[in-house]
Amino acid sequence: MAMIPDLLKYLRGNDKNTASVAKERLQLILAHERAGRGASTPDFMPALQEELLVVIAKYIHIDREQIKVQLEKHGEYDVLELNITLPDGIRK
Amino acid sequence: MAMIPDLLKYLRGNDKNTASVAKERLQLILAHERAGRGASTPDFMPALQEELLVVIAKYIHIDREQIKVQLEKHGEYDVLELNITLPDGIRK
Repeated sequence: MAMIPDLLKYLRGNDKNTASVAKERLQLILAHERAGRGASTPDFMPALQEELLVVIAKYIHIDREQIKVQLEKHGEYDVLELNITLPDGIRK
Repeated sequence: MAMIPDLLKYLRGNDKNTASVAKERLQLILAHERAGRGASTPDFMPALQEELLVVIAKYIHIDREQIKVQLEKHGEYDVLELNITLPDGIRK
């Protein structure tokens, strides 16, 4: 896998936003690269995000209030990011 | 968002694996951080991965043969990555 250190650097960088207590976390990043297709953000992203959350919630006990959602555009990339801090008993 | 340049560097780094022709792509990264919980990879990851694909396929026309799946462990992180090269007519 190319450039994995850059990904880990990114994932760890997000730690600064949360409490310093060791917490189990799940991060989901959905990146859509529109190479050569113009600039519109796909209109299905919010609905897709909601369905992805429903799927994850089938496997892991998620507290909806512990989810941070960000949808950002960076050049040719639309990046949807979900940061989920897991409660103590995560397995269903 | 912290460290977004690192994320973009990572996403673009993966380009080297694909043809140089501009293609629309979708990348899904699911990172599970097990802070202080021991070393076991959650056994639900393969099933979760399959369900995430099913959800994405509801919104985007996906060719299953165009999907690269990687599940890797890096220290406290389990990283599941799906790289999907989209066919020309992506919207359903």
